[in-house]
Amino acid sequence: MTRYALGIDVGATKVAVATISEDLLVRQKQEVATQAGDGEQLWSKIEEVIASFLGSETGALLGIGVASAGPLDIPHGTLSPVNIPVWRDFPIIERLESISGGTKVALHGDALALAHAEHAIGAGRGWENMLGMVVSTGVGGGLILNGKVFPGETGNSCYIGHHSINFDGRLCVCGRQGCVEAYSSGPRMVAIAHENGFDPQLKTFIDLAQSAREGNAIALEAISQGTRALSIGIINFIGTLDINHVVIGGGVAEAGEIFWKPLRAHIEAESKAIGFLKNIQLRKAELQRDAGILGAALAVLR
Amino acid sequence: MTRYALGIDVGATKVAVATISEDLLVRQKQEVATQAGDGEQLWSKIEEVIASFLGSETGALLGIGVASAGPLDIPHGTLSPVNIPVWRDFPIIERLESISGGTKVALHGDALALAHAEHAIGAGRGWENMLGMVVSTGVGGGLILNGKVFPGETGNSCYIGHHSINFDGRLCVCGRQGCVEAYSSGPRMVAIAHENGFDPQLKTFIDLAQSAREGNAIALEAISQGTRALSIGIINFIGTLDINHVVIGGGVAEAGEIFWKPLRAHIEAESKAIGFLKNIQLRKAELQRDAGILGAALAVLR
Repeated sequence: MTRYALGIDVGATKVAVATISEDLLVRQKQEVATQAGDGEQLWSKIEEVIASFLGSETGALLGIGVASAGPLDIPHGTLSPVNIPVWRDFPIIERLESISGGTKVALHGDALALAHAEHAIGAGRGWENMLGMVVSTGVGGGLILNGKVFPGETGNSCYIGHHSINFDGRLCVCGRQGCVEAYSSGPRMVAIAHENGFDPQLKTFIDLAQSAREGNAIALEAISQGTRALSIGIINFIGTLDINHVVIGGGVAEAGEIFWKPLRAHIEAESKAIGFLKNIQLRKAELQRDAGILGAALAVLR
Repeated sequence: MTRYALGIDVGATKVAVATISEDLLVRQKQEVATQAGDGEQLWSKIEEVIASFLGSETGALLGIGVASAGPLDIPHGTLSPVNIPVWRDFPIIERLESISGGTKVALHGDALALAHAEHAIGAGRGWENMLGMVVSTGVGGGLILNGKVFPGETGNSCYIGHHSINFDGRLCVCGRQGCVEAYSSGPRMVAIAHENGFDPQLKTFIDLAQSAREGNAIALEAISQGTRALSIGIINFIGTLDINHVVIGGGVAEAGEIFWKPLRAHIEAESKAIGFLKNIQLRKAELQRDAGILGAALAVLR
């Protein structure tokens, strides 16, 4: 009898629901827009998709995995995704347990899910240790150590975007000073460019990257600063752990060489001082949009 | 038949050699001063002690563990301890293998050995995850994850003293800028105090701590800055990993409340922004001088 998992990826604009086989093939997949009325209405639509999938699948359901944008309260099983204001402390684990008759339900951050999926069947295949990162509207991460996900004590590892690399530096939204994310997320690179006179009509990282490709000095400098900060964060963390493999996904990482070229240069400069980091490998994530549902499902499949 | 390990702790002024039983009791122990002629003469004295121990012990030798001050080249099995200039790329693993007839030999950094020993029978007993640190003439660490030592890919985890917390800050001896160690080691706190007018006759951290206890404002400020930097490094790392337990040993940690009081206050301030770090426990190392030989022996006993 075939067995499968349900994977749910809670993103900013949509919630993806999918059934995934044990060999990590996506069987059925459907997306629900998050701008769909209040929190209960959104849940009803998701519940409908789940019911239809569970009704039509053959084989045994092994469990349900959820990957979500933060903040999460994993011990309590609740979500408060920044971009889904109708869900605050939404008890997704309880809801899923009640409709699935006590099957295993797991909740992880979206960056941890990406790391898990990229390690299993993406850019990090075969690596014993790996830092997976999402660089997008925020900067997050997930860790593979000794071949397994290291979720941390409350599931919040690896919270790499909010470690401070400049203790008297920019105040971060989190309350600390000089966090990696305060320099390196897409919106923060754009904001820093605006401070330096970048065209206020151009508001997104896609705009910033395009201007940089066209030679705009302010845009180039903002990306250089952002990738420098990111490289310091990466080297801080892989240097302290003594691991060598990094996979980066997320919208910013999709910008191509305008992001990767300065990042590689800063990584090389910053790693020189750490003699034992001799085999750094830095790769772009491969799985694109399915990383979330695959990583979610992996939490119950592996 | 009883079984035992040989533990060797290479420090700045002495090399301790001991036999340790499987239940972690020190059976025999002897120290060799490191200022004892050239590198081969030093080795001869150590070899003599080892031969005498191996000759007089009953039971089976399970292996030899070495804990050493850095830098180490663990893949090549060599030592170049900063304070033992007669040993540069000294091939200790090869030497030990040749005199012990092919028994297992393991080499770890001294901070990793401390973490291992404190976790096994010291201040970190029973903790699933733990950051162990040595704050002394340098700042080093060792990690316990899921109940086991995480040595990293070349044995250099956890290199916490050389992660940058101030990317445009003080140049560190390692070559990076703004490393934790550049603010928080004993000698660096003294040097920063001297920059601010602290009595040049007073040269050690013991002097600095005593002046601080007597109310010297420059000394108090240097310790406040040093413990702030240390707390940022600790929170960066335990926050990113989502772990809660920290044990600190080393000469600076022996200074008492003049060190621990500001450290605790900075840890509390710095951790506030990380909502999931709710159970931070910060303890002083318990094992004192035997931590090195015990941690060394543990590498072959466990």
